[in-house]
This record gives sequence, C-alpha cells and structure tokens, in this order.
Amino acid sequence: MLPKHQLAEFALIQRIAKRFGGLRNQTLVGIGDDCAVTQSNAKTLQLITTDLLVEDIHFNRRFASCRDIGYKAMVGNLSDIAAMGGVPRQFLTSIAIPPSFSRNNVDMLYEGMMQPAKQSGVALIGGDTSSSPRTLFLSLTILGEVKPAHVIQRIGLQVGDEIFVTGTLGDSNAGLRILQTPAHKRVPRSCRTWLIQRHLRPIARLDAGQRLAKYRLATAMIDLSDGFSGDLAHLCKLNAVGATINVFHLPISDALRTYAHRMGEQAYDIALQGGEDYELLFAIRPESLSRLKRWITRGLLNAAHIGTITPKLQGLRMITPTGSIRRMPIRSYEHFRSKRVQTRRPTT
Amino acid sequence: MLPKHQLAEFALIQRIAKRFGGLRNQTLVGIGDDCAVTQSNAKTLQLITTDLLVEDIHFNRRFASCRDIGYKAMVGNLSDIAAMGGVPRQFLTSIAIPPSFSRNNVDMLYEGMMQPAKQSGVALIGGDTSSSPRTLFLSLTILGEVKPAHVIQRIGLQVGDEIFVTGTLGDSNAGLRILQTPAHKRVPRSCRTWLIQRHLRPIARLDAGQRLAKYRLATAMIDLSDGFSGDLAHLCKLNAVGATINVFHLPISDALRTYAHRMGEQAYDIALQGGEDYELLFAIRPESLSRLKRWITRGLLNAAHIGTITPKLQGLRMITPTGSIRRMPIRSYEHFRSKRVQTRRPTT
Repeated sequence: MLPKHQLAEFALIQRIAKRFGGLRNQTLVGIGDDCAVTQSNAKTLQLITTDLLVEDIHFNRRFASCRDIGYKAMVGNLSDIAAMGGVPRQFLTSIAIPPSFSRNNVDMLYEGMMQPAKQSGVALIGGDTSSSPRTLFLSLTILGEVKPAHVIQRIGLQVGDEIFVTGTLGDSNAGLRILQTPAHKRVPRSCRTWLIQRHLRPIARLDAGQRLAKYRLATAMIDLSDGFSGDLAHLCKLNAVGATINVFHLPISDALRTYAHRMGEQAYDIALQGGEDYELLFAIRPESLSRLKRWITRGLLNAAHIGTITPKLQGLRMITPTGSIRRMPIRSYEHFRSKRVQTRRPTT
Repeated sequence: MLPKHQLAEFALIQRIAKRFGGLRNQTLVGIGDDCAVTQSNAKTLQLITTDLLVEDIHFNRRFASCRDIGYKAMVGNLSDIAAMGGVPRQFLTSIAIPPSFSRNNVDMLYEGMMQPAKQSGVALIGGDTSSSPRTLFLSLTILGEVKPAHVIQRIGLQVGDEIFVTGTLGDSNAGLRILQTPAHKRVPRSCRTWLIQRHLRPIARLDAGQRLAKYRLATAMIDLSDGFSGDLAHLCKLNAVGATINVFHLPISDALRTYAHRMGEQAYDIALQGGEDYELLFAIRPESLSRLKRWITRGLLNAAHIGTITPKLQGLRMITPTGSIRRMPIRSYEHFRSKRVQTRRPTT
C-alpha cells in the first residue's frame, strides 16, 4: 500500500517501538502519533514532539535561505502540536553547524525559527550546539499542552466518518518542483512566487486543530508532512479502515490549477501526492457534518469535505472527476534525498 | 580565561539566549543551566535537556561500537538531569542514519541507549528518524522531575563555599588517548582496559545528585562534560566568583596514576583537563562540611573535597603538590574535532 522506502521506515520505527518503546512514568501516548503525551497534572496533558531536518535530505541551501530553513523547521514541529489539538508552549533546538556557516547564518536560522514561534507564543528555553563535519543538522523539540478531554489522536476512526482536510493540497510540492526546474518558466510569475512561498513558508494549522479539539469534533487527526496519499494510507492502516476520496472535492489553489494546466498535468494528481503540506487531515462523525459545514460557511474553519471512511476491505479508493471509482495510487513525496536511503517519518 | 574556541561558543549561545531566549509559559530556568525547568504542577518541576552527538566530532566509529555510542549518548543526557538533582522519566531520539548503517547497527545503537535508560527507569516515548548523506547524528531529549524545593542550579555559589567532585577525574580523557594512540602499549593492559571503559561507558551520577538535592546541601552544581578546568571556569564566571583547587585532593584513579607515570605526565594535569567525565562538580556551605564528610566516610556519597570558592578577583588558582599557589591553566577537552570548527557546549 505504501511505497517501498516508506514501508522500510515504518517497519524500522515499529520495530524500535516494539522492542524499546514504553508507556511508563505517566506516559499516555508513546511512539506512533504526532506527539507523545504525558500526564502533567489533573487538568493538563503535555505534548512532546521532535522533528529533524538534515541538509540535502530535507532542504537544499541553493533553494532555501537560512531564515527559510529555520521557519520551516519550526512550522513542522508546530504542526505536530496542531494535529493533537494542542497549544505549543516551549521549544529546544539541537543544531550541528558545518564549517561553511557564518555567525550571520546561525542568526538567520534562529530568526526564521522565532518568527512562527513568536506568532504562536512559543518560547526558546534551551538546546545544544555542535560543529558538524559537513552538513547542517537541525532537530527541534517542542512542548505543548492540551486538556485531557480535548486531545485528538491518530486512532479513533469509524466506518462512515466524513473526511476533511484544511487549506489546499499540493502547493508545496509544485513550489519545490519550480525551485528545482527552471523549465517551469512557462508558468506565470505570480503563480510561481505563490507556490514557492507555500513550499518555503508553510502554515501550522494551530487554530483549526484547537477548534476541533475544543468542540471534540475530530475522531482522528494527522498532519500532512510526507504526502497526502501516503499519510492517508498510514492513518487508515493504523485504524484498520479504508477510505474513498472524491478528487473533485480536493482543495486546490488557483495557482496550482494554473501550474498543472501549463505543465499538462492533473492538479489532483499533484494534490494526492502532496508533501510538506502541513495541512490537517481529520475525520468527524456523520452527525457532526452540518455543524462543520456551518463553521466552514461562516469562515470559522478553512477546510474541505473530501471523502468518507469505508471498511478496510475496500482499501483506498478515489472517485475521479469523470465519476469512475479507482484504486488510489500511493505516491510518496521525495525531498532531495537519494533513492538508496530511507525516508523520514515523524515517529511521535 | 577559557580557550578561544570555547569562548566563541559561549558567546554564540549567549547571543542566541539574549536575542531569542525566553522565560514565558511557566518556564523557570531557560538557556544556561544543565536543564531547562518548567512548572509542571504545584508539587513538581519538569526538567528538559537535549544533547547532540555528531560522528567524527563526538565519537569515532573506529573506536566506539554502535552500542557504545548509544550508551554514552544516554548517559550524557542523564548526567544533565543528575546535575539538577532530578529524576529522569522519559526520552525522545532524533537520529539521522548514514547509508553505511545496517539495520543491526540501528538496533545496537538503541540497545546501547536502553541499557542505562532501563537502569534509571527512563522510557523511550518518541522521536524522529531520517537518512543522512554521510555522518550519523544523534540527538536525545530527556524529561525529568524534581521537587521545587530540591532543584539545584548552576547559580548559587558564595565565597567560602567548599568545592566537591564525585567519582574520579581524567579517566575518560586517558581512555580516549589510549584508543587513539597505539604507543600507549607500555601502560599495563588492565589499566588500559579500565580507562577505555571509563571513556566508552561513563556513569551518570543520579544517586549523588538526588541525595544532594533531597537534603538541600549543594549551593550550585554542574556536570563535567567539556573538561574539569573549563567547566569550573564557566561555573565561576556565571557566579562571579573565583576558586582555589588543591590538586593534591583531586580524585584520581589508580589506573590514571599508573598511566600518567608510564607516560611521564602528571596525573593531576590530566584530571584538570578532563573531558567527558560526567562527574558532578558542586559546592556546599562551610557549615555543611562535617555532614558531607560523614556521608563520604559512610559510603553514602562518592565525592572528594577539592577546594574553596574565593572572591572573583583571585581568579582560578591551584595549590600544587609542592604547596605553591599558581594560576590554574584552563585547557579544553578536544573530541575528534578539527580545530577550525566550534566546539560543543550544552546550552541547557
């Protein structure tokens, strides 16, 4: 169901979780969700997640400034807190600096991190620095809070649940392709700029996550980092269910539509593959549908109704724009990585 | 006072702390101590620290097995919890795996981590994995607990305080030198084995830290990772005090004594430089001296009384075995790093 190298990494993490993972010491959720969850006090659960960015794997300094790299590292972590319905509080950085890095590069990296951090009220409270022989390595650990009744996990889907996704899909993937391939110049400049911005400066959907948590509406939620189809497949596998997605309802930006048209591709193909969207994929019970649609109409939530949870036997299917039902191709998002090495997958 | 490259890194961290650090959101201690401290609930403070190991900077796979690397990474983090008087609870790993690494290598790395983790009751609750273009990166984040009245910080020294250190100093440094230089074969095999073991398998002094915390005896504490003289200089600078160390009282193992003798060196020189000792350096008020000495005599604490806190103007001094008083040379510990790049320094 998942591409081979993703499967390899899921297997690695599952083996580590099985052999070495534990739920002792007030730990309520361990390896396998967007964040680990520990009991802080009777009123509050603590969320913890760590996210790793490696030069030439997750970013390339030809395409991204130090400020961009810091910004995206922070958003990737904030997005994990959002996917549990939490409020981010503090973070720590672990950074290995290559000889080619100047003091100004380091400052810009931190400035990039602090911009979304400040907007979200997150404080930098510690970390570790080291030199690195060649490549930049940046690992962030973020702490957040959520009320026990509000926490949203990856587990909880039931057949018949309605599937939603925030924002728009595929923009980041298109933005990366534009950065990598000058041939994309036939796409209008304003579209290119917008898609690149979506790749370099994603948005963590903290408000949406917290709203869904507060009203206890989402049955399960995950943030989309590895790519829509792969992340959906992972979520369905965890819950032992299938899903049918109506590609006509996938939220696609005008810029992506223009890009796909000029490149002779289907916009929904790019949206299905996705990658680093940092949007939230969640499901609700059918009886909550009218309430959610009201929220969307009133502008309280930026989300689209894209499909339904089905029995596991039906697998992952898609309704194409012509109305035919087909098996959904699971295509994984490739950063800059070489094909021989394993891909990343957040384990918390 | 500190070597140039250490100064450069202190300066980097101080600038980051000043520009970007914050104490919002129930954070009581931010950048600058062994751990950050947040308020968990009325009865408990939470300790958090992150520690980074980079291949060819902090370890070399010619000298250390994957199990050794994992073991030491965990002890380095546990030691930071020990230095605040805390109890470690959970940890997360962030790991970038080079193509040369086998599945078995990864397993051994985790087995190495889990050995001291299990002994200390610490549970693996999450993390992130990635591929790495060339070198192994391993960042651990550890969470711990301490009662508000028990927490020991790096700040708190007063002139007249008596200085102690746990265990023995310099063994790890000698062990590393033996691994790096085959010429050390004139040192007896049993000494070599023991010193290498001290380098590869250090001990986190959790019991000592917790005992000092419980009885509120230590006025300040730090764990020795970068080297005794450098860490002492850093502690004194933070507290705006000086210190006089009696080198005759430095705790030196028989193995280090034999090693130094065979190499034509002074054992106390190696102890003063240290590096990756992971022992605790702490001070107590003079009135607690008899109590502490009683603990030591009864085997309740493995520590040595090595000097006294003095006014800042006197700087760092040492009383040599001949009884003369001299300025203490501050020598930093070098891992495998090249001289052009900055050194590591835990910022929490």
